[in-house]
Amino acid sequence: MDAPTELLAASSITSRMITRVQGAKASCLVDMISVEEPLEIRVVGTHEGQPFAKSLSITMRTPGHDVELAAGFLFGEGLLTDRSQIQRIASCGTVAGEPELQNVVKVELHPGVELDHKRLDRHFYTTSSCGVCGKSSLEALSVAKCALLPDTPPIEVTLIHKLPAIARSAQAVFEQTGGLHASALIDHAGTLIDLKEDVGRHNALDKLIGTRFLKGEVPLTDNLLFLSGRISFELVQKALMAGIPIVAAVGAPSSLAIELAEQFNMTLIGFVRGGRCNVYSGTERLRL
Amino acid sequence: MDAPTELLAASSITSRMITRVQGAKASCLVDMISVEEPLEIRVVGTHEGQPFAKSLSITMRTPGHDVELAAGFLFGEGLLTDRSQIQRIASCGTVAGEPELQNVVKVELHPGVELDHKRLDRHFYTTSSCGVCGKSSLEALSVAKCALLPDTPPIEVTLIHKLPAIARSAQAVFEQTGGLHASALIDHAGTLIDLKEDVGRHNALDKLIGTRFLKGEVPLTDNLLFLSGRISFELVQKALMAGIPIVAAVGAPSSLAIELAEQFNMTLIGFVRGGRCNVYSGTERLRL
Repeated sequence: MDAPTELLAASSITSRMITRVQGAKASCLVDMISVEEPLEIRVVGTHEGQPFAKSLSITMRTPGHDVELAAGFLFGEGLLTDRSQIQRIASCGTVAGEPELQNVVKVELHPGVELDHKRLDRHFYTTSSCGVCGKSSLEALSVAKCALLPDTPPIEVTLIHKLPAIARSAQAVFEQTGGLHASALIDHAGTLIDLKEDVGRHNALDKLIGTRFLKGEVPLTDNLLFLSGRISFELVQKALMAGIPIVAAVGAPSSLAIELAEQFNMTLIGFVRGGRCNVYSGTERLRL
Repeated sequence: MDAPTELLAASSITSRMITRVQGAKASCLVDMISVEEPLEIRVVGTHEGQPFAKSLSITMRTPGHDVELAAGFLFGEGLLTDRSQIQRIASCGTVAGEPELQNVVKVELHPGVELDHKRLDRHFYTTSSCGVCGKSSLEALSVAKCALLPDTPPIEVTLIHKLPAIARSAQAVFEQTGGLHASALIDHAGTLIDLKEDVGRHNALDKLIGTRFLKGEVPLTDNLLFLSGRISFELVQKALMAGIPIVAAVGAPSSLAIELAEQFNMTLIGFVRGGRCNVYSGTERLRL
């Protein structure tokens, strides 16, 4: 290892009180959560003799090794080919002491280093979760005009425990390849309404919600969403747009996924397996 | 379920000959692989009285339910709010009978339906794997000027079996949260050079490669890459840019990941667990 004693930045992990459910019994405990935050890369240099500054808002990431992430991204996309092209690369927060700039990395190129600007333009990427660097992500999200999810009647927690079996029964491809994520929509009686699979978990969810949208069935207030993997900010955001009040998954949620769920009155449940689960927000929708 | 008998499109799965390794024994068999291909969404409508057509190249997805994926994406991003806004939505391949257009969905809006064009502009997204819709992805990739990976001396397959244990010993955050992907760089003696973690698997790999890039150590011809999850096209592409000849992972590769590995002389290994693995390309780098 480069630095055997090096730990990830403290900001990579956070802790919070969660409700752990085993069978029908609930207990409160402190759990460790992976942090997810947006990262913006700013490239500064000269192009055809003129100075330029360009922002690439690229990714929701776990803080830590941000400079390396920015360098690796620019190299992997063919924008940079050698480290000698970089005059200076630093996290803006580190430099200016402004904590809100900790999610920005500035890459300053040596004078005379010309990037492929066609290629650079292709990488300008923002989603509805972007424009969030340098300010609160949730603040930016309210731009998307998401409404607070309504209070809905509680469901039996036993239904949550059954979700993996319900989804598994319908997974056509996963059983064969082991290579797909699944998103399932289930009603409060435990009936599977639909399940979609894809190599990308966001695609599986887009397919699931898109099907309901085309049928004129959104918002999906009376349904549960079950995800085969981990719960990112992006997935919670898509569920929120579709008005789904309960989201459960086999994997862990990120910090930003939990914050978003909490702020919009969504019930978020992770690690659903073997008759156990962790509830991160909205416990009042579960009958325990 | 909507349609209990409905199976995913046949194009969602493909099969190919692979080499399955158990301990030091290898056998050939036919395996099922999840298909991964790019999808482009074209939106056609009017804006301030003028006709417009816009392409959003959005995602590497598993073919099947493409229309629903496009609708779900546009809804989830706040671009569409009601299905009545859509006049017609169809996969171009289906319409024109042109197979290369099967990766394009065209969304025609009703006259008078105004989209939020600021929002639409924000969603114009292309990566180096884009511009590939409607033509061969690999063809487009050669634009990135990736060189064929050189032949490298074979390694003992026992090293592959040890990779999960080597990586686990260094995973700082994963052990605590269960919520992170890891990318590890290992030399042929089985020494862990570095390991990076992130909520996004592409970020973990960018951090890993970016660290080497900043040290002036690319290409990484003498190293192996080990990934905690599945192997997408994007991850193989990043490894290829960094010149890593052997990529192994706990999870399954997609069809496009395998094609790319094969074309550029990369050894690609999946399902590395419990003394077993599947080799998808470049078996000559393994001593069996």
